[in-house]
Amino acid sequence: MQHEREHTLKAFDQDLDRLRALISEMGGLAEHAIGEAMRCLVERDVAGARRIVQDDKKLDALEIETERRVVQLIALRAPMAGDLRDSVAALKISGVVERIGDYAKNIARRVPELQDVGHLEPLSLLPEMARIATHMVHDVLDAFVNRDAEAAVKVAERDQALDDFYDSIFRTLLTFMMEKPNNISHATQLLFVAKNLERVGDHATNIAEMVYYAATGGQMTERLEKAGAL
Amino acid sequence: MQHEREHTLKAFDQDLDRLRALISEMGGLAEHAIGEAMRCLVERDVAGARRIVQDDKKLDALEIETERRVVQLIALRAPMAGDLRDSVAALKISGVVERIGDYAKNIARRVPELQDVGHLEPLSLLPEMARIATHMVHDVLDAFVNRDAEAAVKVAERDQALDDFYDSIFRTLLTFMMEKPNNISHATQLLFVAKNLERVGDHATNIAEMVYYAATGGQMTERLEKAGAL
Repeated sequence: MQHEREHTLKAFDQDLDRLRALISEMGGLAEHAIGEAMRCLVERDVAGARRIVQDDKKLDALEIETERRVVQLIALRAPMAGDLRDSVAALKISGVVERIGDYAKNIARRVPELQDVGHLEPLSLLPEMARIATHMVHDVLDAFVNRDAEAAVKVAERDQALDDFYDSIFRTLLTFMMEKPNNISHATQLLFVAKNLERVGDHATNIAEMVYYAATGGQMTERLEKAGAL
Repeated sequence: MQHEREHTLKAFDQDLDRLRALISEMGGLAEHAIGEAMRCLVERDVAGARRIVQDDKKLDALEIETERRVVQLIALRAPMAGDLRDSVAALKISGVVERIGDYAKNIARRVPELQDVGHLEPLSLLPEMARIATHMVHDVLDAFVNRDAEAAVKVAERDQALDDFYDSIFRTLLTFMMEKPNNISHATQLLFVAKNLERVGDHATNIAEMVYYAATGGQMTERLEKAGAL
């Protein structure tokens, strides 16, 4: 009986490790998609942008695969407490990573709109914003794989800097539109791109909260309130 | 044994009914929040907008409650096939409804930005767009409660009309900005509101796909391809 229990535990851990690996893979694809979307935007690479939209299907398929495995895991192994929290976190995090991929797709879809435009000064700010956002995604998924609640808190704390960056780009774009009304249409595209990147940061923060809850059973907001950060 | 099996089945159905009721309740709150957010936007009701942001916490709590119940249901009753699909659909749909509530909150947060502005002509188009979007949410949740795959297809088919409405408002707002550069900042707020409403329609369509899969085990996209709609 003792032996059987250990066997079940080990099988559960292996299943969970496979789930973590799947989610890391999804995270890698989503990060790459955002980086690529920004490159296509800057270089007006319409064919590359089309590939990003196509490739998003891989993320959709991996999300379905994760869901199937999590449901199987819960139904067959009936995990308790921390293990159950981890399993549900995997399900939810894969859904959020899939949505992060959707933002990359949204950005890629704007590339044709900018195809015939010359130099757009505010565009140069966006790749740096994208780097901050994708680093947050990368680090929060690392925190999930390592069950590291404190690393998750650190990611969540970086969201404010990204929001400030967004506010600054937003003001820059508004000024740009007022000065060059001919560019309103293109600047609007960049406004939506900036908003998409700000949302990527929000989603990384949501994942951070899920990682924190899975690892500790407590709410991150309470941890931040105690530290006086909220 | 036969008697026990029937007892389990009945208990499962009751659990599932309670889940459906929870999700209907969430849907009602989300619909109301969007309608209220539009009213606050039109009437510049900043206090009302603040209440919407506050009330969004109810949706967050109901999502957590739904998640808890679904996980318990899967772990305790190990449902199979259609029942398992229904349980997972409930979990995922509650997540999407919570995000629809977030869009209402986003819209409400823009109300103070428009506080001191006089008449903004394009604003008059937005409440109608909001009505179309919230009707989609209402009808797709009814389809979930009734396990009605065809009703879900009908909701998904309405998303194109909402997208067309959005495109038209988008163009109207761009023209408005070019003609009145002083209003660029306010028009930008309305642009984001229109985008939020368009996303509400996308989410209703996502739910329609979940309802279709839960009820039939097949993918809605394949059903639409066969009908020549895609």
